[in-house]
Amino acid sequence: MNENFLLDTDAAVRLYNEYARDLPVIDYHNHLSPDEVLGDYRYENIAELWIKGDPYKHRAMRMCGMEEKYITGRASDFEKFQAWCAVFPKLIGNPLQHWSKMELLRVFDIDIPICRENAELLWTTLNKKLEQPEYSSKKILSKFNIEYSAPCMTFNSDISGFERDSITAPSLRGDDMRDITGEFIRMLGKNADIQINSPETLKAAISKRYDAFHKAECRFFDYAVDDGFTYISDDGKNEERLKKLINGEKLLNEDALHINSELLRIGAQECAARGWVMQLHIGAMRYTSSRLRKEVGPAGGFAGIGTADVRSIARMLDDLESMDNGIPKTVLFTLNPAYNEALAVLCGSYSKDGAPALVQQGPAWWWCDHYSGICGVLESVSSFGILYEFIGMTTDSRSVLSFVRHEYFRRVLCAWLGRKIEEGVFEYDIASLGRLVERICYENAAKAAGRFIK
Amino acid sequence: MNENFLLDTDAAVRLYNEYARDLPVIDYHNHLSPDEVLGDYRYENIAELWIKGDPYKHRAMRMCGMEEKYITGRASDFEKFQAWCAVFPKLIGNPLQHWSKMELLRVFDIDIPICRENAELLWTTLNKKLEQPEYSSKKILSKFNIEYSAPCMTFNSDISGFERDSITAPSLRGDDMRDITGEFIRMLGKNADIQINSPETLKAAISKRYDAFHKAECRFFDYAVDDGFTYISDDGKNEERLKKLINGEKLLNEDALHINSELLRIGAQECAARGWVMQLHIGAMRYTSSRLRKEVGPAGGFAGIGTADVRSIARMLDDLESMDNGIPKTVLFTLNPAYNEALAVLCGSYSKDGAPALVQQGPAWWWCDHYSGICGVLESVSSFGILYEFIGMTTDSRSVLSFVRHEYFRRVLCAWLGRKIEEGVFEYDIASLGRLVERICYENAAKAAGRFIK
Amino acid sequence: MNENFLLDTDAAVRLYNEYARDLPVIDYHNHLSPDEVLGDYRYENIAELWIKGDPYKHRAMRMCGMEEKYITGRASDFEKFQAWCAVFPKLIGNPLQHWSKMELLRVFDIDIPICRENAELLWTTLNKKLEQPEYSSKKILSKFNIEYSAPCMTFNSDISGFERDSITAPSLRGDDMRDITGEFIRMLGKNADIQINSPETLKAAISKRYDAFHKAECRFFDYAVDDGFTYISDDGKNEERLKKLINGEKLLNEDALHINSELLRIGAQECAARGWVMQLHIGAMRYTSSRLRKEVGPAGGFAGIGTADVRSIARMLDDLESMDNGIPKTVLFTLNPAYNEALAVLCGSYSKDGAPALVQQGPAWWWCDHYSGICGVLESVSSFGILYEFIGMTTDSRSVLSFVRHEYFRRVLCAWLGRKIEEGVFEYDIASLGRLVERICYENAAKAAGRFIK
Repeated sequence: MNENFLLDTDAAVRLYNEYARDLPVIDYHNHLSPDEVLGDYRYENIAELWIKGDPYKHRAMRMCGMEEKYITGRASDFEKFQAWCAVFPKLIGNPLQHWSKMELLRVFDIDIPICRENAELLWTTLNKKLEQPEYSSKKILSKFNIEYSAPCMTFNSDISGFERDSITAPSLRGDDMRDITGEFIRMLGKNADIQINSPETLKAAISKRYDAFHKAECRFFDYAVDDGFTYISDDGKNEERLKKLINGEKLLNEDALHINSELLRIGAQECAARGWVMQLHIGAMRYTSSRLRKEVGPAGGFAGIGTADVRSIARMLDDLESMDNGIPKTVLFTLNPAYNEALAVLCGSYSKDGAPALVQQGPAWWWCDHYSGICGVLESVSSFGILYEFIGMTTDSRSVLSFVRHEYFRRVLCAWLGRKIEEGVFEYDIASLGRLVERICYENAAKAAGRFIK
Repeated sequence: MNENFLLDTDAAVRLYNEYARDLPVIDYHNHLSPDEVLGDYRYENIAELWIKGDPYKHRAMRMCGMEEKYITGRASDFEKFQAWCAVFPKLIGNPLQHWSKMELLRVFDIDIPICRENAELLWTTLNKKLEQPEYSSKKILSKFNIEYSAPCMTFNSDISGFERDSITAPSLRGDDMRDITGEFIRMLGKNADIQINSPETLKAAISKRYDAFHKAECRFFDYAVDDGFTYISDDGKNEERLKKLINGEKLLNEDALHINSELLRIGAQECAARGWVMQLHIGAMRYTSSRLRKEVGPAGGFAGIGTADVRSIARMLDDLESMDNGIPKTVLFTLNPAYNEALAVLCGSYSKDGAPALVQQGPAWWWCDHYSGICGVLESVSSFGILYEFIGMTTDSRSVLSFVRHEYFRRVLCAWLGRKIEEGVFEYDIASLGRLVERICYENAAKAAGRFIK
Repeated sequence: MNENFLLDTDAAVRLYNEYARDLPVIDYHNHLSPDEVLGDYRYENIAELWIKGDPYKHRAMRMCGMEEKYITGRASDFEKFQAWCAVFPKLIGNPLQHWSKMELLRVFDIDIPICRENAELLWTTLNKKLEQPEYSSKKILSKFNIEYSAPCMTFNSDISGFERDSITAPSLRGDDMRDITGEFIRMLGKNADIQINSPETLKAAISKRYDAFHKAECRFFDYAVDDGFTYISDDGKNEERLKKLINGEKLLNEDALHINSELLRIGAQECAARGWVMQLHIGAMRYTSSRLRKEVGPAGGFAGIGTADVRSIARMLDDLESMDNGIPKTVLFTLNPAYNEALAVLCGSYSKDGAPALVQQGPAWWWCDHYSGICGVLESVSSFGILYEFIGMTTDSRSVLSFVRHEYFRRVLCAWLGRKIEEGVFEYDIASLGRLVERICYENAAKAAGRFIK
């Protein structure tokens, strides 16, 4: 993996080195733990940092037939590390090979081939490094030129720690609004210091949590529009349903679906009121293997890809447009690339004066965040949308090491541009393409995060 | 944009220059106004010609956050022109940049960069040209080597003007057959000079309009199979339903759906009887933003992409095959590229002795009519169908300037072939590939239009 | 078609010649007739061998408008051959051109251009060859370095002939389990020598047929999950339904659907118990033209592509995981490339200790088995799965000549790898890529077939 990794044209090399490489990182959606980003966490060993919390690696190990014992089970940390090293050479062609090599190279300056034979050497070498103070979580993060990083928290999370941190802000994960429970309402009331006894007080409490997040520099909301999601317009009976819910009555399943859409509208309006970005993560199929769900928890790396109900999303945006605050700045992430075009085109169907890319397609997400997935989204945004306004990469990751993927994205972007130049689709105008690279890799996201001043 | 624009291999250059470039244009489906193609219209200014009637540009301006005032609102023509120029540099990567540059270069011989700074210069220069007689609509059209152009008209349009024009013929837009109204029937009776008081007289009137269109050299029918369309086979009760309809009774929604399919069958049979081509435009989602629909009308550039019900189309073709006139020559256009393969394959499921490509996939359509969209369809037709019988490009546009897109299509086709040669998929046999280019860029469409004599 | 056909980089040439070319062929799913593979069949003429039994060619001829008389009708064999030759030059870009040229070149050492003008010459030359003993079916097969070939047979097929053949084993086509009939049960009882009078005896008879197939070295089961398929979990009433069925009662349609899923579960469990591979062929739409179905039979080359119900497949795998034998090694073939990603990802959602690629995506199937289809699956398996465990090519063909498609697949694979090297996605490490090629082109399939010993 040399310095021109993936940069297969002169233009790509120039665009990467002269424009992309040194831009600060805006990571507007991730799942980092507050312990690691707010505290200065020390890792027990490389398995803890690199493997044990990473569902991508777990999934790959399972696909190679590795025993669960060595993935999430009772094996020792070294055995798990060894298992990962043993699997690694089989991952040829899979993005995990690229990512993992970059993680060792960029963070630990280590270029030893990852394989069973080198497992002990790597274990010793990496753990020795981890003992040094420069490998605390904060120090690792400091290697990535991060300007803004937004771990997602829930409505009822304690976000007090974020106020002291200049680069880390919470983002607001809205999934608790789905199939809302009495417990959620109770906690929300407590956290918002509002007695929730009516739809109005519920909305007030929600709004107050938005205020608290906003104060902690949160600018991003996200909501999972999973496989099977159907949007339901307001039928005028949601006040009534909310009252039942607040009174602790059990809702019929159909009523619960109405409430889901109602709360999504409420959340979206709060976003729009504050100039936040609403991220819709579309198309995950989270119920696949019941066994794995039971054994390793809901985020264990076994989710599938389902369908997207584009008509539902269209109707939701249409409804929002007619509401007081209108459509918030919205980013549509699709887990199923078969919807790249449908969602890219949908983005052009809604607009607001003075709001560039009011609705836009998000970067390749989750399992799709690899070379061809990234190129697929670039192709789609470019052909159907406005690449110049593209918000670019976010890791969506649970690991501090994953920030190398911003480098990965930037290299792929420059390689893609280089090929387009060769085909004559883009003119070889280094200044204007460099400008484009700056927008995509930094400025557009920085603006959304409220960090860009020029 | 030099003479080898997009032609990135020697083979592409040769195929384009030696075969594609000078072929006449057959534009078998567009939305040009009779005023411009039959009369010799003079444009007030460049905004009128280039921007004000073009929903593609409107959409792009909205995606860049431009105020609606400067798009379709009350701003002056110059302000609208200026707004478009200001947005233009942001469209890097979007097909509108290519098309627009080509429009200025090919029609006006102008190569000034389009940007806010040049807005005044462009405005003055272009308007000066427009004052000259060689920039009337007819004169502009004469620059494109058009042999046949087919603006779509409806059943009740006055098509008398077309008979005097040697290159322009109406095509018949069948969408009025959907959710047919009493007013439509009344007008149809008047235009066909038949008193419609029974299913038989309704069919006779429809048939008579086909005759009138045929006499005006119409050879193409089109019908929009939008997102949500479901085909319903004949249940034997459609005579009855038609009687109710003709008697002015209000149909139940379900009955209306039956009638839609019945009329589509009737229309298709009329096509087959006359050797016309039936174009099915599949997968548009026209109801997105209610606000924009209200503000700028139904064709304002805010349509989305939905799903295609391939099973419905399969059953419709199957039903048609069992009817007296069989399946007409049919072209399936998909707005959602995710259906490229399913529709390309479906084409191979129906056949008729002596009818090459009886059912075939149409070119990349509407939002998909760009470099990667065109290549996607070429890949699909080539891999699953018969490229040699491919009907090739049509603009589907509202603007006389859009004929540059035939050049665009031809360049992309030649570039695509050049790459295939380099990969070894096509042999570098310039004569046989040149022949292929001639078929795709001219002959196949010319035959369909009844214009090709050899 | 020279020796470097499709090998457009140095790496591709090396990978193909040094690794892929001489590997034995494992063809784990095809439709060859026992007459040809077990007997030593002599072909009457080249039309019989090359055209009359090949639905791919029939389809292409229909798409070119050839009269059915010359495809499956009453024309003479020479006329059919002539018709095929006449159509051939029009197939430029279609995989049939590549395959057909390779068939003549590799099997007959003939490189005469296929066209109407050469039809007589080809007819004479090829028929003269066919008169020689080295062109019997067995001798033709011997040219392909086949180690294992698995024509599919049904539960009630006579498979006694397979035991004497060292390279040919039956594979078990499970489609008779769908919409199971009294006649099927009667035959099954006879073939298994079990009196079927209860669910238990039905299961025992099924199991006994698995035993018989296993003894004949069958290791592959296949089942068609066509467009419209919906999986139904066990509701506890299937014993009851099976009893009705066995007693000759007519099942309600809904009950029949329950039984379909029940039998699929039973079949899958039998696979898992024996270490077989279950192949799910997903997304065919077999009911298109009723006319062709009637005229040329259900496998006449007119099938379409429909949708896949990914959620159904997910639930089925989830159910199997909870059963005694768990999920068998499973290969998901999609006929609709729009589901490449969804199915590739689904594969990563199920795992078993010690079972690499327990569920994996199969190679490009049927109409998709062409250059871009193959690359699409490679891209998908590589990006989302484990290319190193990819089971690779099988012909799924009815013709002994189709084994050339293994060469085709290998060339495309090497070309694809060569391009990836140029892009920097794969490192140019010939040894490790060569190893990958060996795994994909031979070892992984050989292991599944129980043939690989190292």
